[in-house]
Amino acid sequence: MLIHEDRLFPAEPGARTIARALYTHIKTLPLVSPHGHTQAAWFAKNEPFPDPAKLFVQPDHYVFRMLYSQGVSLEDLEIGQPELKDPRKVWRIFASHYYLFRGTPTRMWLDFAFHELFGLSERLSEATADLYFDTISAKLRAPEFLPRALYKRFNLEVLATTDSPLDSLADHKAIRDSNWKARILPTFRPDPVVDPEFDGFLDNIRLLGEQTGEDTAVWTGYLNALRIARARFHSLGCKATDHGHPTAQTADLSTAEATDLFRRILAGNAVAQQQELFRAQMLTEMAQMSLEDGLVMQIHPGSVRNHNRKLHQLYGRDVGADIPRPTNYVDALRPLLDRFGNERNLTIILFTLDESTYSRELAPLAGHYPCLRLGPPWWFSDSPEGMLRFREQATETAGFYNTVGFNDDTRAFLSIPARHDVARRMDCAFLAKLVAEHRLAEDEAFDVAHALAYDLVKQAYRL
Amino acid sequence: MLIHEDRLFPAEPGARTIARALYTHIKTLPLVSPHGHTQAAWFAKNEPFPDPAKLFVQPDHYVFRMLYSQGVSLEDLEIGQPELKDPRKVWRIFASHYYLFRGTPTRMWLDFAFHELFGLSERLSEATADLYFDTISAKLRAPEFLPRALYKRFNLEVLATTDSPLDSLADHKAIRDSNWKARILPTFRPDPVVDPEFDGFLDNIRLLGEQTGEDTAVWTGYLNALRIARARFHSLGCKATDHGHPTAQTADLSTAEATDLFRRILAGNAVAQQQELFRAQMLTEMAQMSLEDGLVMQIHPGSVRNHNRKLHQLYGRDVGADIPRPTNYVDALRPLLDRFGNERNLTIILFTLDESTYSRELAPLAGHYPCLRLGPPWWFSDSPEGMLRFREQATETAGFYNTVGFNDDTRAFLSIPARHDVARRMDCAFLAKLVAEHRLAEDEAFDVAHALAYDLVKQAYRL
Amino acid sequence: MLIHEDRLFPAEPGARTIARALYTHIKTLPLVSPHGHTQAAWFAKNEPFPDPAKLFVQPDHYVFRMLYSQGVSLEDLEIGQPELKDPRKVWRIFASHYYLFRGTPTRMWLDFAFHELFGLSERLSEATADLYFDTISAKLRAPEFLPRALYKRFNLEVLATTDSPLDSLADHKAIRDSNWKARILPTFRPDPVVDPEFDGFLDNIRLLGEQTGEDTAVWTGYLNALRIARARFHSLGCKATDHGHPTAQTADLSTAEATDLFRRILAGNAVAQQQELFRAQMLTEMAQMSLEDGLVMQIHPGSVRNHNRKLHQLYGRDVGADIPRPTNYVDALRPLLDRFGNERNLTIILFTLDESTYSRELAPLAGHYPCLRLGPPWWFSDSPEGMLRFREQATETAGFYNTVGFNDDTRAFLSIPARHDVARRMDCAFLAKLVAEHRLAEDEAFDVAHALAYDLVKQAYRL
Repeated sequence: MLIHEDRLFPAEPGARTIARALYTHIKTLPLVSPHGHTQAAWFAKNEPFPDPAKLFVQPDHYVFRMLYSQGVSLEDLEIGQPELKDPRKVWRIFASHYYLFRGTPTRMWLDFAFHELFGLSERLSEATADLYFDTISAKLRAPEFLPRALYKRFNLEVLATTDSPLDSLADHKAIRDSNWKARILPTFRPDPVVDPEFDGFLDNIRLLGEQTGEDTAVWTGYLNALRIARARFHSLGCKATDHGHPTAQTADLSTAEATDLFRRILAGNAVAQQQELFRAQMLTEMAQMSLEDGLVMQIHPGSVRNHNRKLHQLYGRDVGADIPRPTNYVDALRPLLDRFGNERNLTIILFTLDESTYSRELAPLAGHYPCLRLGPPWWFSDSPEGMLRFREQATETAGFYNTVGFNDDTRAFLSIPARHDVARRMDCAFLAKLVAEHRLAEDEAFDVAHALAYDLVKQAYRL
Repeated sequence: MLIHEDRLFPAEPGARTIARALYTHIKTLPLVSPHGHTQAAWFAKNEPFPDPAKLFVQPDHYVFRMLYSQGVSLEDLEIGQPELKDPRKVWRIFASHYYLFRGTPTRMWLDFAFHELFGLSERLSEATADLYFDTISAKLRAPEFLPRALYKRFNLEVLATTDSPLDSLADHKAIRDSNWKARILPTFRPDPVVDPEFDGFLDNIRLLGEQTGEDTAVWTGYLNALRIARARFHSLGCKATDHGHPTAQTADLSTAEATDLFRRILAGNAVAQQQELFRAQMLTEMAQMSLEDGLVMQIHPGSVRNHNRKLHQLYGRDVGADIPRPTNYVDALRPLLDRFGNERNLTIILFTLDESTYSRELAPLAGHYPCLRLGPPWWFSDSPEGMLRFREQATETAGFYNTVGFNDDTRAFLSIPARHDVARRMDCAFLAKLVAEHRLAEDEAFDVAHALAYDLVKQAYRL
Repeated sequence: MLIHEDRLFPAEPGARTIARALYTHIKTLPLVSPHGHTQAAWFAKNEPFPDPAKLFVQPDHYVFRMLYSQGVSLEDLEIGQPELKDPRKVWRIFASHYYLFRGTPTRMWLDFAFHELFGLSERLSEATADLYFDTISAKLRAPEFLPRALYKRFNLEVLATTDSPLDSLADHKAIRDSNWKARILPTFRPDPVVDPEFDGFLDNIRLLGEQTGEDTAVWTGYLNALRIARARFHSLGCKATDHGHPTAQTADLSTAEATDLFRRILAGNAVAQQQELFRAQMLTEMAQMSLEDGLVMQIHPGSVRNHNRKLHQLYGRDVGADIPRPTNYVDALRPLLDRFGNERNLTIILFTLDESTYSRELAPLAGHYPCLRLGPPWWFSDSPEGMLRFREQATETAGFYNTVGFNDDTRAFLSIPARHDVARRMDCAFLAKLVAEHRLAEDEAFDVAHALAYDLVKQAYRL
């Protein structure tokens, strides 16, 4: 068997029994996925997923970055190719390097999918590569493996995508207008039109003006255009915005200062400091708009994007070289919090890639400001150990109820059940430890487990 | 039962048995509380404590910040009101939100007090709010709940308060002159007269001059005044000073430079950098004076005070919005250590709110310099997990004997036994793990447990 | 018994059984020590080691810094004296303070050596000081305690020293030319000739020119001289370089810029920023040369050397006051990685003293760039808990195979088996936890344990 029914539970038998009981209580709850990177087109078109290599290896830079780190070439993996010439060969390379993932969450997610979805029970390796390729390929063509069937099988209740303000959302409309009962929601991610360093930023601003009928060459028109774009998302069920800035810096400029800064930015000759200030101001503007339209705000700072210059030049964005850097929240968020920190009708969910901020900054902030909540550990931190560190370091000051449940943040649709399963098991493991050490009563642990798996995410994202 | 006799001990039966044995060995040792924020007036006047809301909710910003973070208004909690209009209503709000504290140390402390002091055994909730209110209110009027009776019941041996150099210490004198046998000691906290950003700083300096008969308008007079104030504290049993600076920065200016800087500071037009330099210099001056008069020096940097601008404006200091920021010790302390680092007759206790410094900076510093000791995890870090992280990350380099036992750092007198109990249990849990993993012999663990609970704090604070 | 056969294994019986089985599988594997500070002269001359005080106390600043931190004077320990006047007295001081090491790795290493090498079974204390002194002194004179005999007894397969480019390597030559079959390898540590702040830097540059016959007064001659020195090391079996810089900063200057910078440096009036830039550039130059000659590059930034000014003045370098500071890798390494990051024939091993970088920067970097590997936790972090933190925080993103096994990094030859033993046990403890929690199959854990103990270090250092 690739996966064990007691996986991730504490080894100590007493605590394990408690963890198992808690998990049994919540394991059939629907999955709520409020933040991720699946594609609405899959569900609009409902076509079969492609072959195993195209499905599991090529789109997932957390899979191929590990292979790359050990000397496998991206050419051999056909990264960046729209069509794979030899998917079986790519799969074999992956299979023969599968041992590299030992001890990583990627390994747990993949084994879960191989076992639960495809019924495979022998470990993936060079020897079983073809068995895997053939088994998975065959199943992917069956009706029960079509995107909509899997959505149902996965027991999904909500699935959010992440979308540019310039996106037509045609696929979301198509889903809405179909007779399929499912909740696939867009998320408003304005980076392309609020980050002056984004590729094609000036063109994006012009396009935003065209799409909204506003004059985005002036500050007020630009803000209006963003409001109109948000309203369009809102009408298709959007519940949240998402902001992937290099830092958590916010600003609170006067209208005159902001107008002037926007003019410089549009002139295209702003220096780095002004670009940073503009992003900072835009977080505060977005908070203002969230207060108006009720969209929940997600801020996830601290990644150096495209760190590997050569790969970025060859392959473009998102080829696996995002590297976290230290992130300050306590000073950076102050301008925004000075204006909106005490608003009870605003929800801002903070994420981090810098775990040293859990106990030092994030838990104290979320344990005080009414508008703040803590997003789950993610990206490089959504491992079993990472989840435990989050609970251990955040709970003591922020409690459980200033957190917002789990999100899978994934492009890999087939890994969604596995990711939620790991998160639920780790929360049960953490709670079981508290119960076993008499730090929490067992009946309360059942309540909390339910909240962490289901209630908190629905409340936080207003679902 | 609200609390279990084996709470906080490891779940694994072998380690639990060891932890229990260690704890039994130390649980009846007297409590030594060398750093805290109780009020000498309680013991001087020995009047009954007020109602439950006024006692447990209103003064404790670590209680009401959690409620506030979840949308409870401070108006409804009557925060900042000298007299509560409706304490029972405040208590009911608190009770109905008590579930928010699940998994936090606050919950453990409160349950301990409810159970051990007030004999309550049902959990606090909306349903039991009135039962709690009535039970506690009745008991607080009984003689055995007067401050002096509780001091004895708590098995306190020493209790230190924290006081401004401008404080008359009248209550401390009254206690000394009474026939009550107890050790309530003042602590010299000079922030009001050494931090140029402190509210009323210039007035404070003038007042210090008047009280000491020195000309505090000049550098040498100012230093003399501080010496005189320290001597006054010393005569009332004071053993330590306490310094709550934004950073750990120290300086070692020449007399000419210091004289000039002091003149600028008094002129009231110093910029932020000069204010920081002044605080930095004053830490070094305080170390010099400690070498002279033997007062132990406590430095606890790294908190952004009054982070929430609106609440600070409405309610003043200490309404729950102190947020830690990253703190550097290795460079910041160097000027002071260059002068006094090798002094064996000086004791400087370092605290932190930035746990990333435990293994990186604090343990290496304390494991080398004769004058340095490490204070316990506190403030946001005095949770069971926080205490474990401290021991795990500090012991390997600094050992046990460069630490100074526990302090409760609390305004909440009734929580003192609970806080010491948690600390003692966690130290026993940590030691039990070392014994169970054959990293420490059991007889040595008994010695260490005793030292951590009692001996080290008495040595470090020269009690 | 001083040491227990199950030491460091998890207390939970199931996990302990797995850990014991894993350890049994690897405990007899040869020790590979690719990075350390033993002296080739010991093996060239093969003379008896001196008395216990000279062997265990005087050379090991991680022993005497603990004593110093608790008020023992360095004079009493005769630190810095070439010959000890009263080694028994020094030993007695050490013995009577041995309790200070409770809970530290130093204690485990020493107990291991006392028990395994010298057959001592009573604990070291004031009472047993003389027994220890006499027993150890007697054994050290026996032939089986000569350096070469111990090398064999320790089951060492490779032992690397650390050497200045100016070192004659006469002892390494003598070993090579002897008929003794052992592998004692030099390591190229160019700090004395690439760090402008190194004592005697300008003299060192001149000496390097004389030794290599190159004109080190010009940039190209200086680089050639370094190439020649590396080749000389290479010819004596050297496999790696080692770089102990204050920061991880790298640079990629043009030849004209580098030439100009070198000229300023040699003029002796460069400011701190230029000195830092020069070190930064030299890391990139060293990477270029490693690509040419195949030497593995070890970078270990982040220590403030000689933090204690007074002790540095009195005793010189390496008297125990190296204190870590925060270290940034993600921005600092970028210039080097922009040039060489994607090279599969280059190996750069990154070390840290700032554990907050494990999950935030180091694991993401090593889990992506083909040239990067992670060195083991060391220096202040090679404790059982420190090793666990490394595995917990690095494995999830970098896996096991981007790490390079253990190195002992020690001057204390007699502690080498103990240090490897602790590392092996902790890796088995970590793996046992993964197996017990069904996160890794048992057969895979055996493979990984073998790799961590033996295979990875040989691969990484090209042995």
